[in-house]
Amino acid sequence: MSLHQLATEARHACLTLKRSDGATRNAFLRALAASLRARAADIAAANAGDLTAAAAAGLSPAMLDRLRLDGGRIEALAGDVEAVIALPDPLAGVEAERVMPNGLRLQQRRVPIGVLGVIYEARPNVTIDVAAVAIKTGNAAVLRGGKEALATNRSLVQCVHAALEQAGLPAQAIAFIDDPDRGEVLKLLQLDSLIDLIIPRGGAELHAFCRREARMPVITGGIGICHLYVDAAADLDRALPVIRNAKVQRPTVCNALDTVLVHRAVADAFLPRLAADLLPLGVSLRCDPAALARLQPLTAQHPAQISAAGPGDFDREWLSLVLGVRVVDTAEDAMQHIEAHSSGHSDGILSADAELAEAFLARIDSAAVYWNASTRFTDGGQLGLGAEVAVSTQKLHARGPMGLRELTSYKWVAIGDYHVRA
Amino acid sequence: MSLHQLATEARHACLTLKRSDGATRNAFLRALAASLRARAADIAAANAGDLTAAAAAGLSPAMLDRLRLDGGRIEALAGDVEAVIALPDPLAGVEAERVMPNGLRLQQRRVPIGVLGVIYEARPNVTIDVAAVAIKTGNAAVLRGGKEALATNRSLVQCVHAALEQAGLPAQAIAFIDDPDRGEVLKLLQLDSLIDLIIPRGGAELHAFCRREARMPVITGGIGICHLYVDAAADLDRALPVIRNAKVQRPTVCNALDTVLVHRAVADAFLPRLAADLLPLGVSLRCDPAALARLQPLTAQHPAQISAAGPGDFDREWLSLVLGVRVVDTAEDAMQHIEAHSSGHSDGILSADAELAEAFLARIDSAAVYWNASTRFTDGGQLGLGAEVAVSTQKLHARGPMGLRELTSYKWVAIGDYHVRA
Repeated sequence: MSLHQLATEARHACLTLKRSDGATRNAFLRALAASLRARAADIAAANAGDLTAAAAAGLSPAMLDRLRLDGGRIEALAGDVEAVIALPDPLAGVEAERVMPNGLRLQQRRVPIGVLGVIYEARPNVTIDVAAVAIKTGNAAVLRGGKEALATNRSLVQCVHAALEQAGLPAQAIAFIDDPDRGEVLKLLQLDSLIDLIIPRGGAELHAFCRREARMPVITGGIGICHLYVDAAADLDRALPVIRNAKVQRPTVCNALDTVLVHRAVADAFLPRLAADLLPLGVSLRCDPAALARLQPLTAQHPAQISAAGPGDFDREWLSLVLGVRVVDTAEDAMQHIEAHSSGHSDGILSADAELAEAFLARIDSAAVYWNASTRFTDGGQLGLGAEVAVSTQKLHARGPMGLRELTSYKWVAIGDYHVRA
Repeated sequence: MSLHQLATEARHACLTLKRSDGATRNAFLRALAASLRARAADIAAANAGDLTAAAAAGLSPAMLDRLRLDGGRIEALAGDVEAVIALPDPLAGVEAERVMPNGLRLQQRRVPIGVLGVIYEARPNVTIDVAAVAIKTGNAAVLRGGKEALATNRSLVQCVHAALEQAGLPAQAIAFIDDPDRGEVLKLLQLDSLIDLIIPRGGAELHAFCRREARMPVITGGIGICHLYVDAAADLDRALPVIRNAKVQRPTVCNALDTVLVHRAVADAFLPRLAADLLPLGVSLRCDPAALARLQPLTAQHPAQISAAGPGDFDREWLSLVLGVRVVDTAEDAMQHIEAHSSGHSDGILSADAELAEAFLARIDSAAVYWNASTRFTDGGQLGLGAEVAVSTQKLHARGPMGLRELTSYKWVAIGDYHVRA
């Protein structure tokens, strides 16, 4: 079936979905979890084939790990689907209501967005994650996964379609682009009469491509060049574990720390301790000259882990155990550095100076700004949203983690008594 | 100055604007109103020149009327600017706050979007409207007006810049593209690192061009193919003035009625009365065969005003005293017609049947849906938003009339006690 047909059928399925009730949509989630468990062996076998081909094609161990979907991970995926059942129905009820002076009763009611186009890479679990949150929120979706995961995704989509049918919902609501040709992505981005929103889940290149080519709204994000500023008034003992958490706990994700800025008043005291704390954990430090000078004795002992920052190093999302380090003369310099280099994802200040911290929080315009906390909290679960679909670093519609509510829109409802406008 | 420089300076001005307080932004509005009044004679003279050139170039009377900015209209414009002062500051205060089980204090605070790119046509008042609401909401803007209004706009932009300086705000915050070359619009749409949001204010062609070419989010809307369905259970006496209001009060705007659907059970009784009501007001009816049959005796008397609907007539936004008329067999047919032909702006049902009306309100997925009211209420003022910047018919970010709050975004603020993620 052509992509245009797939998207047309998904659009048509919307009409049924938006009239479905929360119980039916939860029935789909239950059926999906059951289907994943019942077909776990088939899914794992399909995934083994994808893994063999990917290994032969020379994919990196990190990529192979993302691609892997074994029995344990399938069970975890089924559990994730079940967790969505318990989340409140974002479409239920009337969100706001008022009666205007002329007696016209106004409401805002939440509605699905329509058809989501989701473009992702080698992680097949995204297929299930997206199907679960899309149906929970009354949206249809057209999915485009990475070619490395094609057999796995086909097997997962069978589970999704079976579960939709079991719940009495149209299988066409979750469409999967089975053609690995890259031209299909471009075609998808041009279907603005059928697709309401594009959600790219991948690297910076995919996001830029979608921004450039898409004719419909795109949620871009997921790129985090994240900063923590250690102020002169920071509690240095307590700053260390925060930086360690932000950098080391899960270095491959977008809310991991990329650059630490240290006020020069505490740089002598703090930087050697920071290095002593992070070097044994395998962290490499890319230092500006002032930081490098303060780490001098250590540099000779750890030449592979302490080095001068190169051009552009403060504009990189490391996604690995590398940390940029810079000494700043003032808090103003720290804020200017962040304004110049942040990707607008997550940035914070560590300080006991409440007035300065408030100025920082007011001024730094990132999706999430922190005072005395790790950047790792920028996450749907941590911020209390339940499920997370994407992390937006743009300012339209949703900012930061997008949960279920952020996958809905609203409409105005006006109830009158044959009201006319004066 | 090049467009890139203009936009870069506007982006830089954002940093000042987002740190400004509401009083400073209101001081700008006061100064702008005063400046418009002080320079009214100069503005009117510039406008007279634009009007002369436009008339010589053969612009339609309707276009010339949009272009006209005489003393009375300048005074009204100054009044509009003053009205914005009284509206609440959308950036003030903390919108939502909660403390997570781990003690992390979370807030959502509203922030400006950044730099708006606004593309409009021959109406010079848009220059002032946009400057007023942009600064009120802490946003910078790059304006691109129609070439017919160039001299008028230059004169208005002088007022804006003088008022910004008087309020101690950077004049660069409101940039105006002074080059009438059409290529500048395309360049603007590609500046996604400098412009956060494009707001086109013009016809369908401009909206489609922006959707296709823009690399940043675009608020599209303003195109209303609006419907009212007269149900079998409608109060026909009271339905007439609602349809008259929706069609005739201001036929050139997007929330004006385009098509009336009439249940066949009341078509014999209602259609002749509708025609008798609207024909003397100059309305032309484009009828489907069933409606035409019911208007037969009248058709011969008013051959110029009653005619058969041509192909595509039910997919047109009339913006004039033309009304599509169709008889439907059932309410289901009416809803299917609306789903197929509505632009998602404003659609309504007239009926005493509460169950049917609720089904209609739940199902019809337009920005505004009405039960027993005119479609003309889809307007920022009528829906209680104060100012209106645009009417969105897309589902992302804002839907229906966009007021001041819809020109802002939010950020997450997290305040901890050296919190780390577990």
